[in-house]
Amino acid sequence: MLQSQLFTKTRKEAPKDEVAKNAELLIRAGYIHKEMAGVYSYLPLGLRVLNKIALIIRREMNAIGGQEIFMTTLQNKELWEKTGRWSDEKIDNWFKTKLKNGTEVGIALTHEEMLTAIMAEEIKSYKDLPRSAYQIQTKFRNEARAKSGIMRCREFMMKDLYSFSRDEKEHEAFYEGSKEAYKKVFEGVGIGKVTYLTMASGGIFSKYSHEFQTLTSAGEDLIYICDKCKEAVNKEVIADFKNACPKCGNTKLREEKAVEVGNIFPLGTRFSDALGLQFLDEKGEKKSVVMGSYGIGLGRLMGVIVEVFADEKGIVWPKEVSPFQAHLVSLAGEDTKVKKSADELYKKLTEKGIEVLYDDRGLRPGEKFADSDLIGIPLRIVVSAKTLEADGYEIKDRATGATELVKEDVLLKIFK
Amino acid sequence: MLQSQLFTKTRKEAPKDEVAKNAELLIRAGYIHKEMAGVYSYLPLGLRVLNKIALIIRREMNAIGGQEIFMTTLQNKELWEKTGRWSDEKIDNWFKTKLKNGTEVGIALTHEEMLTAIMAEEIKSYKDLPRSAYQIQTKFRNEARAKSGIMRCREFMMKDLYSFSRDEKEHEAFYEGSKEAYKKVFEGVGIGKVTYLTMASGGIFSKYSHEFQTLTSAGEDLIYICDKCKEAVNKEVIADFKNACPKCGNTKLREEKAVEVGNIFPLGTRFSDALGLQFLDEKGEKKSVVMGSYGIGLGRLMGVIVEVFADEKGIVWPKEVSPFQAHLVSLAGEDTKVKKSADELYKKLTEKGIEVLYDDRGLRPGEKFADSDLIGIPLRIVVSAKTLEADGYEIKDRATGATELVKEDVLLKIFK
Repeated sequence: MLQSQLFTKTRKEAPKDEVAKNAELLIRAGYIHKEMAGVYSYLPLGLRVLNKIALIIRREMNAIGGQEIFMTTLQNKELWEKTGRWSDEKIDNWFKTKLKNGTEVGIALTHEEMLTAIMAEEIKSYKDLPRSAYQIQTKFRNEARAKSGIMRCREFMMKDLYSFSRDEKEHEAFYEGSKEAYKKVFEGVGIGKVTYLTMASGGIFSKYSHEFQTLTSAGEDLIYICDKCKEAVNKEVIADFKNACPKCGNTKLREEKAVEVGNIFPLGTRFSDALGLQFLDEKGEKKSVVMGSYGIGLGRLMGVIVEVFADEKGIVWPKEVSPFQAHLVSLAGEDTKVKKSADELYKKLTEKGIEVLYDDRGLRPGEKFADSDLIGIPLRIVVSAKTLEADGYEIKDRATGATELVKEDVLLKIFK
Repeated sequence: MLQSQLFTKTRKEAPKDEVAKNAELLIRAGYIHKEMAGVYSYLPLGLRVLNKIALIIRREMNAIGGQEIFMTTLQNKELWEKTGRWSDEKIDNWFKTKLKNGTEVGIALTHEEMLTAIMAEEIKSYKDLPRSAYQIQTKFRNEARAKSGIMRCREFMMKDLYSFSRDEKEHEAFYEGSKEAYKKVFEGVGIGKVTYLTMASGGIFSKYSHEFQTLTSAGEDLIYICDKCKEAVNKEVIADFKNACPKCGNTKLREEKAVEVGNIFPLGTRFSDALGLQFLDEKGEKKSVVMGSYGIGLGRLMGVIVEVFADEKGIVWPKEVSPFQAHLVSLAGEDTKVKKSADELYKKLTEKGIEVLYDDRGLRPGEKFADSDLIGIPLRIVVSAKTLEADGYEIKDRATGATELVKEDVLLKIFK
């Protein structure tokens, strides 16, 4: 894409009320637009990142048999009354609205109730199990304070998968498989090395659940890492394990600040009991379906990636989620030969299906480089009078700053 | 995908309160689930259709330079007060809710206000124009009665593109280009031949706008078609043209029932004036940006396609938007040879990247065929003892009912 056509521009300052580094950088670079605290629109660059994250998540959810669906935002009060979660005293961050006839409806806080009710119409027999379904859809949480940028929003895109099993054993097998799928997601988006499977509280659903926690100084959680097992325990439950690793008993745990980028929850039969999701087993006996829920916030994940890799110059994307594979920066100025060379390279790369942001704007080199650093595409390709003379291109690694003068054939091999 | 694994089942009856043919069939076939009147979740088959429609729309919007974004559902009251559209007396189908601190917020009725405000931060000079941006995002309309299935919903997915131009002339050029892009969309999803560019009222924005109207007996609009120009006029404005074609003066117009599947609106400077979207022209003079808006409801389009092509047996998808390219129906029963042949064909087709729904369920042939007719995938492939003996496969065209016994090489060529 031609940067001269991109409708967003970089800016020196984020809105004054923006205190989170992730949102500050993403706004300055033109990825997102702040509508109100905790509510952000995704602009062209931002949506490209979000779509890449979504693609990686879909790949792994499909691989474990998840069937993708898209449920609604407006939700029936009756469903939530059956599980006892409608009242504002029970759930303190509801958004609600009203139909014309005065009927109150909920605005998708989450979708356990809705999908359980859908499944109650589909699952009748043990032959209909196991099943799992997921969606990538918006959730709404009426947070009193929202000051972590896109890491904690009032409105945010989430992947939520729900599993339906015949019994605890079948559930357990799916649950373990989901851990592996989640690991692949976090490896896939480039934060595998700093993300830990973490034992956490099960909240109202079960004794324990599991979180995936990513190390960052912006983290609001404290986790205790066992470097032997490469797993962690959330501070909230570490006392339950006498400050030792629940797996190997190791007591030399490393305390770190982290952000939860995903969670997986055993739900037992809490929802299936309340909403009539039963099936007939092999003996013809009626049983409740055993459920689990598995969430990843896409915007939060994007925010965490920014927090983990950004440096003083701006964002640094892992190549897997970068909005473009390369940032082609032309220093043509008035030099038509340089312009022609950059134009041709842009054409050649895009024809090969490589995603390139081409800075064809008439700005000074310093401005272009500063913008490029801020936007954070991992590979920069510079075309200038100097590179033209050397019959090559200068490439620069955004993360390390390393530069190299390469011939065209070497450049093209990078994208293989 | 193995039909035995698909979590939805077909059913004999839709909910009793469902009066629209499109929703009735889509519910019975397992494409959608009704949450409340005018609010439908998309199940695996339904989401596949919706995604195919989205892909075709994106292709054409990108081709005219649209930059994809994703704006939010929660909207600032202040923006809408500036254009005078916040009051329930002005807009009678708002959904609204409240933040914790009591602040009222709107729930995305539409996004003109929000995008105009975003653009006011990006567009400063004539050099920043023209621009256009679009999204595929949910809209909410508090309809008192919602009884047209997925053709008129309280919550629905919409593609809305907005254009930003220097002056009327530049706007006009984009507007004309959008007509061609829209034609390609409707041809792309298979309803090009029954869809007419239709002159309509401009509502509060301008004297006239244009709709794309698709002929169907379920239509709530009446249009007057000029068979010479292949264009139409909506009944609401036909008197303005003295009951003649505005293009050629033809007075022999054909009256038809139709449904609006898309609309394009000149917005003038109504929003840019109200929200401060101004730019400096070549002479350094401040001018308001000239805008247009361009909508297509994805669910409505899906509903219209069902209405147009369905027959007494069920849905008939055009191949462009069918959830799968082929419905492979195995009549193996206890015959392991037939099962093996069907399994192998499924494997071969999916390995070639062909999307196949494989009915591997242990049901009687009559049940399988009835389900297949209801689901409406355009090409059915039957594997049975009979076809195995003939060393071929029976293929059936869902639309015409024509069957043919073909060899494997002929079958594979169909997907080329």
